[in-house]
Amino acid sequence: MTRKGYNIAVVGATGAVGQKIIEVLEERDLPINQLKLLSSKRSAGTIINFKGNDLIVEEATNDSFEDIDIALFSAGGSVSKQFANEAVKRGAVVVDNTSAFRMDENVPLVVPEVNENDLLRHQGIIANPNCSTIQMVTALKPLQDAFGLKRVIVSTYQAVSGAGNQAVEELRNQTQNYLNNEEIHPELFPVKGDKNHYPIAFNALPQIDMFQDNGYTLEEMKMINETRKILHKNELAVTATCVRLPFFTSHAESVYIEVEEEGVSVEALWEMLRKAPGVTLQDNPNIQEYPTPQSAAGKKDVFVGRVRKDLDNHNGFHLWIVSDNLLKGAAWNTVQIAERVIEKNLLLK
Amino acid sequence: MTRKGYNIAVVGATGAVGQKIIEVLEERDLPINQLKLLSSKRSAGTIINFKGNDLIVEEATNDSFEDIDIALFSAGGSVSKQFANEAVKRGAVVVDNTSAFRMDENVPLVVPEVNENDLLRHQGIIANPNCSTIQMVTALKPLQDAFGLKRVIVSTYQAVSGAGNQAVEELRNQTQNYLNNEEIHPELFPVKGDKNHYPIAFNALPQIDMFQDNGYTLEEMKMINETRKILHKNELAVTATCVRLPFFTSHAESVYIEVEEEGVSVEALWEMLRKAPGVTLQDNPNIQEYPTPQSAAGKKDVFVGRVRKDLDNHNGFHLWIVSDNLLKGAAWNTVQIAERVIEKNLLLK
Repeated sequence: MTRKGYNIAVVGATGAVGQKIIEVLEERDLPINQLKLLSSKRSAGTIINFKGNDLIVEEATNDSFEDIDIALFSAGGSVSKQFANEAVKRGAVVVDNTSAFRMDENVPLVVPEVNENDLLRHQGIIANPNCSTIQMVTALKPLQDAFGLKRVIVSTYQAVSGAGNQAVEELRNQTQNYLNNEEIHPELFPVKGDKNHYPIAFNALPQIDMFQDNGYTLEEMKMINETRKILHKNELAVTATCVRLPFFTSHAESVYIEVEEEGVSVEALWEMLRKAPGVTLQDNPNIQEYPTPQSAAGKKDVFVGRVRKDLDNHNGFHLWIVSDNLLKGAAWNTVQIAERVIEKNLLLK
Repeated sequence: MTRKGYNIAVVGATGAVGQKIIEVLEERDLPINQLKLLSSKRSAGTIINFKGNDLIVEEATNDSFEDIDIALFSAGGSVSKQFANEAVKRGAVVVDNTSAFRMDENVPLVVPEVNENDLLRHQGIIANPNCSTIQMVTALKPLQDAFGLKRVIVSTYQAVSGAGNQAVEELRNQTQNYLNNEEIHPELFPVKGDKNHYPIAFNALPQIDMFQDNGYTLEEMKMINETRKILHKNELAVTATCVRLPFFTSHAESVYIEVEEEGVSVEALWEMLRKAPGVTLQDNPNIQEYPTPQSAAGKKDVFVGRVRKDLDNHNGFHLWIVSDNLLKGAAWNTVQIAERVIEKNLLLK
């Protein structure tokens, strides 16, 4: 770190993840010279306070990135596709929180606790994985290293905030309408851009993102493909069912794994999880200790509980993995990547 | 059926399941001579309308069962343990909706679509399985028959009404308090009789019933053990994670199975599920067709969607199984058993 401070841009500053990125930057020590808040034309002009100063959100243009060292994108895939390469041309490292570049082989897909060395080969754009993938691989990486991973079968319990601020309002309003016995008019869930909409209040929707031709949803395919890329294990058997649920914050995951090594005990898993970076083990049935979406909300770690062995298959284990989808699942992981880029001198200028 | 009508008792008539049993009896053709509604001393005196007549709920005693042909119990395991054998002594067939006798080898554990012939060996008591088990085995039975089942890995999404009327009120009140930014005082979830209580509104609790020494909850062990007993397959590998969620009605289940037969297609599973008794297939990703807790509520069938093949393991399939936990999961299955007992002339007197 040779400079006094860095010029950071947040693209999508008024969105759910953008707001969290600003909050996380505020509490971290990353030396910031200038913070530039960018958005669509529609949200430009919004005033956001950062460390005591009122900053005006500006409309993003190619020129916005001229003097930027690191640009943190979370304004949707189309915005990333429009501006990320332009930002890189102007010398900014892009940390992209959308799915636009995640599976591009020239783009590292990084969870710092898992594969930070992939940052070394970046060519300007670094992708932040999908929220549901990040928390799973953070917990699985130490187990893969210690025991080898053979397969992963995950069923998710996902919060609405992953779908943005409007989605949070839809759950809140629908819930109140339901309690008041008023009619419900679903507008957003399961997927804003899909044809049919169903109630999310007091319900469970087994569709997150659009269906693919193979019958899986895009969210499920993201978990499958991204997990393999991050863990550098293309042959890993991963399969997923993703479900949206009526709570605001944190995704929970019921994860079933099979390990390669024979004779592994729950205690051995606990030991690895206890010392894993970014992971907090909360697992004591005797005192009903386990993480829940509410207990994990607002915290940066990935929480793991309900670790237990399959009673029939001695290589099989269950884990219950919970993390704040807007923090480790998005804003915190993005800021962690930015911090590592600076620490490792991986800026473009 | 040689008689004009039968004397039926409902034990626990004022409870969540008891009320549903009365509703189901009201819409069915089962010929009833006398309907006797029984409860604890506390609820005795309650008036319940049945087919236009006001019936007074009486306190259950041993003598209550003197003239009863079939007694439907859903007042908790201790009440069943106290009265079921006394009822049988007095000539009543007991259909017990609690866990008191389910794993007793002399007691058939019955889902009529799956193993109705087990009724033939009843000795007075017939057990109704756990709600989460019933819907799963109803959907799995046709697949076992057609392709053989090797293993089952289930993660549940369970409604609060499985925990009774008080539980429904707790979710309703907590949700309103949460929306009003008022303090929340959890009193019942995850388990009324356990030490700690956690919020259920806008949360997910990975504990249903008490923890066992092996780290599994009792609900999870019920799913494991009851599934094997009902499917008559003690060697079947079954493992479960059970999660309580903030919705009122219907359990959903993300079920992963491996079948014995090679080369089975999704279409073949669909075909078996389409013709399976008690099952409705709702599975068309092109039009976002899949069951949800709300779409299944109030209906008697077990609904199945999201059927798809594991992309890595050609014997592996996912299913999303949803059913009204108070109907097929409890009241409807109980009344079905009573109807079969009569049809098959299996009464004690």
